[in-house]
Amino acid sequence: MIKLIYDIVIIGAGNLAWQLSKELKHCGQNIVQVYNRSLTNAKELSKQINCEYTSDINCIDKTADIYFILTSDKAIGDISKKLNLRNKFVVHSSGSINLNKIQYKRRGVFYPLQTFSKNTKVDFKNIPICIETNTKKDYKILLTIANLISNNVIQINSKDRQIIHMAAIFANNFTNYMYVISNEILKNNNINFKILHPLINETNKKIKNNTPIKSQTGPALRQDFKIIRKHISLLDDNQHKKIYKILSLNISKIIS
Amino acid sequence: MIKLIYDIVIIGAGNLAWQLSKELKHCGQNIVQVYNRSLTNAKELSKQINCEYTSDINCIDKTADIYFILTSDKAIGDISKKLNLRNKFVVHSSGSINLNKIQYKRRGVFYPLQTFSKNTKVDFKNIPICIETNTKKDYKILLTIANLISNNVIQINSKDRQIIHMAAIFANNFTNYMYVISNEILKNNNINFKILHPLINETNKKIKNNTPIKSQTGPALRQDFKIIRKHISLLDDNQHKKIYKILSLNISKIIS
Repeated sequence: MIKLIYDIVIIGAGNLAWQLSKELKHCGQNIVQVYNRSLTNAKELSKQINCEYTSDINCIDKTADIYFILTSDKAIGDISKKLNLRNKFVVHSSGSINLNKIQYKRRGVFYPLQTFSKNTKVDFKNIPICIETNTKKDYKILLTIANLISNNVIQINSKDRQIIHMAAIFANNFTNYMYVISNEILKNNNINFKILHPLINETNKKIKNNTPIKSQTGPALRQDFKIIRKHISLLDDNQHKKIYKILSLNISKIIS
Repeated sequence: MIKLIYDIVIIGAGNLAWQLSKELKHCGQNIVQVYNRSLTNAKELSKQINCEYTSDINCIDKTADIYFILTSDKAIGDISKKLNLRNKFVVHSSGSINLNKIQYKRRGVFYPLQTFSKNTKVDFKNIPICIETNTKKDYKILLTIANLISNNVIQINSKDRQIIHMAAIFANNFTNYMYVISNEILKNNNINFKILHPLINETNKKIKNNTPIKSQTGPALRQDFKIIRKHISLLDDNQHKKIYKILSLNISKIIS
């Protein structure tokens, strides 16, 4: 039977664990316990959602309905092995780990396609949640929960989820790193990064209304190698020079 | 004397020329003529602002107050030489070209720090406009005009403008190129790029409230080399592999 309120154990106390467990509670789910190998971290998160906590994997509540493993990717397989559960539904939330990494018959993936910080509240309603299970019954359970928190729930298999995660690394981690470099260049010259905010806004507005390739501009696209050479000579950092070169080379090959 | 309405000649008919000349007219300036070496392009833009047009550099109106060279960077020096003007105020709008590239005594730079497309209206009010002149009197003229269209006018010398432009290439051209790759990866797997829009929004929201380095997340920051290797093996395109490697290597060195 598909219930509407589940007893949930949260495993992990990082950025995603903070945001997701608070959101699940907010939507009426019953978080019974937080586990983390650091007792301080487990306690800190449990305070936020007013539930039990433990740092002893053997003391994890065995009576809950669903176990969300919200740890780093590296830890998922190991924790899944150590959890001593029977007939329980165990779910991870990683973009790149296969569903089958979970050792239990009843397994699932609940992958919110978003970047999370502990203290920045995100609006889950617009976040795509990619779900996958190995049984139809558990799919319905995960769908019920996902629909409570987002209007954008999609069934995605492990292969496609991995592709989406890889694309997200370019669109999020790597773009953010471009801002890191940009900020460093300006900071070394006592210029405030805020001067670029309107440009960054516009860059993002553009790709919403157009394909990224049609939004591409700049000296590399115009094959203005004089400017490119000048910038490479101006950059202090050798790694920044390398990055400037390889990206310009690739952009210059775009046929617009 | 500082007037409020100037007779302006626009040289160029590209994205910036379209946006800026329409905005200048909108703010009450008198655009008298558009020059472009392609008559069709000159005519097309002149229609938008209801003014004269020419493709003959010798027919450029000699009686205007200000000449805005809004061409590609490569063409600025050459056009400046060919313009046969005396005591006229000649201005370019490039991020990376020195003020002195303009051959006239009265020279200036009017650099709007933004990415422009012909048909996407931008709100000039928030765009930082970096201005530079070689006389105080002309500075006042450029300031008067810049203040009409933006609330964010800054005096920036050629050296700093070049630095800002270089930082802008990372923050705009290179981030956009990350979206190009991301889109390609998804497209090759029949997944719609729109799935990443909420993530892209959040990435940008984050760096407004935090430094980019504090907003950095992802497998490279966590030094999760297993995931990194997996992604590199999954990528089809050799250039994408190279870009993934060099960016991950640099991100992995961030001490967070």
